[in-house]
Parts: sequence; C-alpha cells; structure tokens
Amino acid sequence: MKQILILGAGLVARPAVRYLLEKGGLKVVLADQEVNKAEAIIKGHANGRAVRMDVKDETMLAQHVSKADIVVSLLPWTLHPVIARLCLAHGKHLVTASYVKDDMQALDAPAKEKGLVFLNEVGVDPGLDHMSAMKIIDDVKSEGGRIETFYSYCGGLPALESNNNPLGYKFSWSPEGAMLAATNDGRYLEHGQVIEVPGSRLFEHYWLKSVPGAGVFEAYVNRDALPYIPIYGLEGVTGMYRGTLRNIGYCETWDYLKKLGLLNQKMMFDFNEVTPKEVLANIVNSNGTDIKKDVAAYLGIPIHSLTLKKLEWLGLFSERRLPLGTVSVFEMFANTLKNKLVYDEGEMDLLVQHHEFEAVYPGLPMQRIQSTLIDLGIPGGDSSMSRTVGYPVGIAANLIAEGKIDTAGVRIPVVPQIYRPILAELENLNIRFVERKSTLSEDERSYWGD
Amino acid sequence: MKQILILGAGLVARPAVRYLLEKGGLKVVLADQEVNKAEAIIKGHANGRAVRMDVKDETMLAQHVSKADIVVSLLPWTLHPVIARLCLAHGKHLVTASYVKDDMQALDAPAKEKGLVFLNEVGVDPGLDHMSAMKIIDDVKSEGGRIETFYSYCGGLPALESNNNPLGYKFSWSPEGAMLAATNDGRYLEHGQVIEVPGSRLFEHYWLKSVPGAGVFEAYVNRDALPYIPIYGLEGVTGMYRGTLRNIGYCETWDYLKKLGLLNQKMMFDFNEVTPKEVLANIVNSNGTDIKKDVAAYLGIPIHSLTLKKLEWLGLFSERRLPLGTVSVFEMFANTLKNKLVYDEGEMDLLVQHHEFEAVYPGLPMQRIQSTLIDLGIPGGDSSMSRTVGYPVGIAANLIAEGKIDTAGVRIPVVPQIYRPILAELENLNIRFVERKSTLSEDERSYWGD
Repeated sequence: MKQILILGAGLVARPAVRYLLEKGGLKVVLADQEVNKAEAIIKGHANGRAVRMDVKDETMLAQHVSKADIVVSLLPWTLHPVIARLCLAHGKHLVTASYVKDDMQALDAPAKEKGLVFLNEVGVDPGLDHMSAMKIIDDVKSEGGRIETFYSYCGGLPALESNNNPLGYKFSWSPEGAMLAATNDGRYLEHGQVIEVPGSRLFEHYWLKSVPGAGVFEAYVNRDALPYIPIYGLEGVTGMYRGTLRNIGYCETWDYLKKLGLLNQKMMFDFNEVTPKEVLANIVNSNGTDIKKDVAAYLGIPIHSLTLKKLEWLGLFSERRLPLGTVSVFEMFANTLKNKLVYDEGEMDLLVQHHEFEAVYPGLPMQRIQSTLIDLGIPGGDSSMSRTVGYPVGIAANLIAEGKIDTAGVRIPVVPQIYRPILAELENLNIRFVERKSTLSEDERSYWGD
Repeated sequence: MKQILILGAGLVARPAVRYLLEKGGLKVVLADQEVNKAEAIIKGHANGRAVRMDVKDETMLAQHVSKADIVVSLLPWTLHPVIARLCLAHGKHLVTASYVKDDMQALDAPAKEKGLVFLNEVGVDPGLDHMSAMKIIDDVKSEGGRIETFYSYCGGLPALESNNNPLGYKFSWSPEGAMLAATNDGRYLEHGQVIEVPGSRLFEHYWLKSVPGAGVFEAYVNRDALPYIPIYGLEGVTGMYRGTLRNIGYCETWDYLKKLGLLNQKMMFDFNEVTPKEVLANIVNSNGTDIKKDVAAYLGIPIHSLTLKKLEWLGLFSERRLPLGTVSVFEMFANTLKNKLVYDEGEMDLLVQHHEFEAVYPGLPMQRIQSTLIDLGIPGGDSSMSRTVGYPVGIAANLIAEGKIDTAGVRIPVVPQIYRPILAELENLNIRFVERKSTLSEDERSYWGD
C-alpha cells in the first residue's frame, strides 16, 4: 500500500486527508507540530496515522519523507524548498498548493532526471484557476478557434448570508497575508495596452463585476497577469487580466485604511501605554479633542463619511488599551481585524471563480465564454476555502499514487493529463464549473464593468 | 356570517385575505379595479368573492360598504377619508395600516358616538412597532419601573442572501415613496436634548447599528419621534428616537444621489431626445467629454469613488435613450431604480424591527430591554413586508368581527385590548418578537452606535 505524507494539519488539511482515506488503498501520515490537530483529522482511521513533527528538525523530517511515496506539503511556501530538496534526495513525488518560485523551478531538471513529479499550484488560486482556464483554452483551440481576451476573477469571501459586518469581509485565518497583499503592484493587458497599477494605487483601480448566480462584486488587480500569457499558450491576446473579487465597499475602505497608515510596519507603539485613539491622533497630528474631525481632514473626506463609522466600529477610536505590548501599527491592526472580522458559528464562506474569454472562430462573430465556480462552505463543517484547496491537492496526490500523473519535473496543472482527471473528480465532490457560451455584440465588448 | 370588505388586492392583500378565509366563520369580499388580481387571491374559496371596483365611483363603493360589517382599506392613504366617511354613514367598522392624519382624527367623536372602531396604523411600521413597544412599556410600568430612553429601529430590506447588487437595496413596489421620504425632516430626543435633522442633511446624520441575529445596519432618522412620547405615555424620557435601517453604504450613496439632483421633480427632459448621460452633463455643467470626472468634481469626490461606479451600474452614464417621453429627473430616476433594483425569482426580503429601552427600577442599576423581530420573506411566496402588514390587518379585522376589540373611535394599537391578542396570534403565524433584558454598564450607556 502506497504511503502519502501530508505536512501540516491546518485549515485545508481535513478535506485532503479525508478524501485520501475514503478513497482507500493508501496509507496517510499526517504530521503537525500539534499532534492533537492531526489526530482530530485522522480520527483513528485504520489507514491513517497522526505524527508530531517539528519542521525545523530536518533529521525527523527526512525520516518521515524517506518512508513515504508521495509528500504533500501544506506548510507555508517558505518551507517548500527544504521539503523539495528532501523529496529529491529520497526520490519522492511532491504536491503543493503554492506558487512556483525560483528555487522550486531550479529543481525541474534534477526532478525530471529522477522521474519525480513536483506538482505545485494545485489548490484553488493558484490551482483551479489554471485548470478551468486551460480546459476552455484547449477546447477553443481544438475547435479551430483562438482566444482574443481572457479576464479571470477569483475571491474567497463571506457568503452573502454571512456578510453581516460593515467591512464586508471576514478572516478564517490570520489577516497578515491579505494586509501585505494590499500593497502589491498589479499589471494587465487591455485592448493591447499594458496597464501598470502601482501598489500605492491598487484600491483606486477597480471596477464592479457581475458574476451570474453570485451577485455584483468589486474586482481589483491580482498581481501581474502577463506571465500567464505564455504559461497558458495565449500569445497574441489583446486582453489578459487576473482580478480579486471582494464585496461592495471593500476597495474604498481599504484605500483609506492604507492612507491612514494602518499597514505601517515600522511605526511602533507600546500598546500597554497607548490607546488606539492615541495612535490615530499621533498619525494625523491631532490633539485628540476631536479625533474624528482630524482623521476626516487627514483623509480629505467629510466628517459624516461611512469610512469614519467603519473605523469606529473596528474600535480604532477606542480609549481602551490593548494587551499587545510594543508592536507595530500593522500588528495592532492585524489583531483588530482578527478579533472583529470573524465567522460566527454556523456562518460560512463563499468561493467564486469566474473566467471570461472572448474567442474568435472562423466566420463567426466574437463569442463570449464564461466558466464559473460558485462554492459555499458547509455551516459547521469545512469552509469552501479548505474544500477548494484540500480536495484538488488530495486528488492530485491520489492520481500520482495511481500513476495517472507521470509527467516528471516541476509542474503546474496546465496540461490535460493533470487537469482533466482532477476537474472530473471535483465534480463528483460537487465542486463544478458552469460554462456558458454566447455571441457578443459590439456594444457588450466595449464595457466589461457590468 | 359577518362580512369583511377588503379594498385593494395589492401586495399586502393576500396574507390578510387568506388569514380571514382560513380562520373560518366569515365572508370576505375582495375588491379591486383589476378583478383578476382579486380572483387570484380568493382562489374560488367558498366564503370568498372577488369584485371589480372603481374607487372613483362613490355609489359603487357605498353599495359594497353598506353590505359589509367591517371594511379593511389597503388603498393609498389619500383615499381613506372618503372610505372612513362612508363607513360612518353606513355604521361600519374600519381597519387600515396607514398613519392617522388630521381628517381621520376628526372622525373620532362621531365614530365613538356610533360605537364604531376605526382602527389605523395596524400594519408593521406603523403597527407592530406600536404593539411591541407598548407591550414592554406597559410591562415595565406594571413592574414598578420607568422608561428612561427608547430607541426604535425598523427596516424592510433585501435579505442578506438576496443582498447582491451594489446599491444594497431592492424594491418590490414603486420607488417613489422611498424617494420622497429621502427628503423628510427628522427630529428626536437624545440626553434630554431635541436634535433636529433637516431633510437636506438626513443622510449625513446616521450611525451603524448592530441588531442581534441580523447583522450591522445603517440607521437614519425616521421623521419626528417626539409625538410618540405622549402617545406611548413616556412623558419624562431623556431619549426618544425612531430610525430606519438600511444596508451598509445606503446613506452615503443616497446623500450623493440627492446632491446630484436625481430627486429633482421640477427639472424636465424629453427622454426620447436626451440620454441619461446628457441629463447628468446638464446638471453638472459638463461638455460630456469626461462626464465621470465632471460628476466627481461636482460632488467633491475622487474620480475612483465607489459612488461613481454605482451611478454607472445604475445606467446613469448611459448613452441609450429611455422610452419615457417628457418627464422629470425624479421620474426618470424612479424608473431606473424600479428596473435595476429588483428581486429575482426565489429572492426574498427581510423585515427587522428592533427596540432598545433603558429602564429604571427602584434599587437596580439601569436595565436594557431589547425587543427584536427578524422576519424573512418566503422564496416564491409572500414577502415579509406583505406578511407583516397583511397578517396584523387581517387579525385585527377578525378580532373586531368577534367583538374582542370594541374600544370605539379612531384608534391605534397602543392599548392591551388591541395589541395583546394581535401579537399572540402573530406568534402562531411565526412572526414573533424576541425580548432580551440585561444590566447596562455606564460604559455601554455612552455609546449607542454599536
């Protein structure tokens, strides 16, 4: 019986582990620093085992890797180079849901040489975005067509039913990642022109996007879309965009949160001595007698603005001290978001992925092809985020175990041998893309922000 | 068998009619200009009858009134004086869900003289607000307590699940009423001070309000709360507020819609000749080459503001003509709202009513009492708005028929004889207020906008 080692029993592990155990014919070892978290997922399954593991202990790590046939790393991406080198040393396949960085890419030739599959970007984004896009791109090509533009949107959000706080967003994990991403530069191609969006203006550059069956969202640029032109074999397109979906009001609010300096990692305060209100007073140079007025003036907005009410709701005008010690404004704000923007019991998240292609077929008017995934978390059960990351990872590991994915080297799921069986199996798990095809009028072509 | 005449087969008629027919022992005549609408509600019930009626034909009206025992008017409030005079002439009881205006109040003495009940304000707001408030006020008094403050909130909204457009609001009836209400003056009492809110600043004067079990909303002043102090027997309170609940973003958006002049009833255009974009260009004095920039400058907001994207989503920058003929900007805008802010099939509304009292009992710290109704529409069935207006109206008519409400004159449901049986029967129909009582800390007292 083949053995799969899964590293990390965090939020996305459960669906991956349960899928592999329920599939049968495999042994699954789940390793985490907190072994009780791993045990809670394995739940005493005959083919499963929970083990304690310190990722800093490379000897222990090597021991576990050496006993496995396939290693699945759900650890932070910074740890993947170490894991990948161990897999190479011991001749094991590797699956991750993380972006391929340079030091992973550097292992392509040695992995190929040893016949090892190092499959990355096999979660939801990156992951399902690649798979569902390539399915359409390959289909269009096989029908003699050509992609003219490709706009792709993805968002993990509170479900409408659970969208009940003034910020329109909730965190089921730590907010630091989203906060850092709020300053990412963006780049895309529109009408053949490259549009550069500096990180400082990220939230000024967005539009409203209607996703059939899900509602209207805000879409802002998700990093650099241009590298995906060669990856997807889309040379010659005149439009190529990747965007993040958020609920209405998100971009304007985050623009002001940034402008107010709440993402400042260098400015430190002793929060045992200083209140959030005093921090804001320091930032906007207020004497504190009318902090709202001074913040409004600093941001150049009216005193009755919704933004001020959101700041107040978050507790940023509070005169209560926070037991944080000396930390940066960034860390204080992360703590605030983590405490206020929470999923209550029975509430659930939503994963929306929406692709829009314009495709040219000989002798036909421009066609629009949409491919949309709308997936809801299970109240009291797995979140959509954990299912849409964990299941593809688990399916990929199983396919490698069965020898159905054997294309060696550092790979991402953009070839039919990888994406077809994963998408097919996800449909069995009720995670499915709905495809729509229609003829576009000239009128529609001129306006994306619908 | 007593006969109840119901005038108007509009949105709220169905629950009232079906309640009365299913209760049994009554005949129900439903009259409407469009008899097929009435027939669709009666559905051939043995004790029901649909009749065609032109409200302008007073002879016909008188004939129907004379045959009934109780008249329920669901017609626009402007028609109620005529109906009420007919009821007086023919000695019939009357039930409406509308506010008591002066000409209705003038009929108090003559109605009393004839032993007739003219029961008004027996819908949801006005209606359930009175009933649920008076229940708590009477309870507190009977327990030896005294009300110190009373803040009351009510909103008919899209349910969270159906809150999927950028405006955060939908209409199931014509938008004109809400548009006119957007310029209402407001007045309330806070810390013993009277706060006046001129209609022009209505949407600058709001706060965020958390309603347990429903989420966080915006609350703005609903007309004049002060007349309710004597009506509710609350002389001596230091706080008295009535507010309207809306989803996050509503007030800021409507403030800008008003400032842009979209509620202007005097400015006319021939919309067969002029596009919405040209109207906006006229208003903001733009040459039309960069209408968004000019509208942004006119409103004093950045070009990337969410407000501009909402205007665009509504189609107000559109260069397509609207088949409206010559109408005011107000009417054009009403038409836009009616077409864009719609409930799709299977979507539903939400009715939230939330009272917050501070009550003083001898020897106890200040108590907070909350009373909250959260009612959802039935997908594909009756909306919450129609249920929470139609059911109390129907129940009231039945109670009068049974002789259980016999307090003659022009009345509203603020006395136990009226509100107790109505609230009790509504609980049987699953429309129930949840009451919560807690001790307030000084800290909590200082901040309502939580």
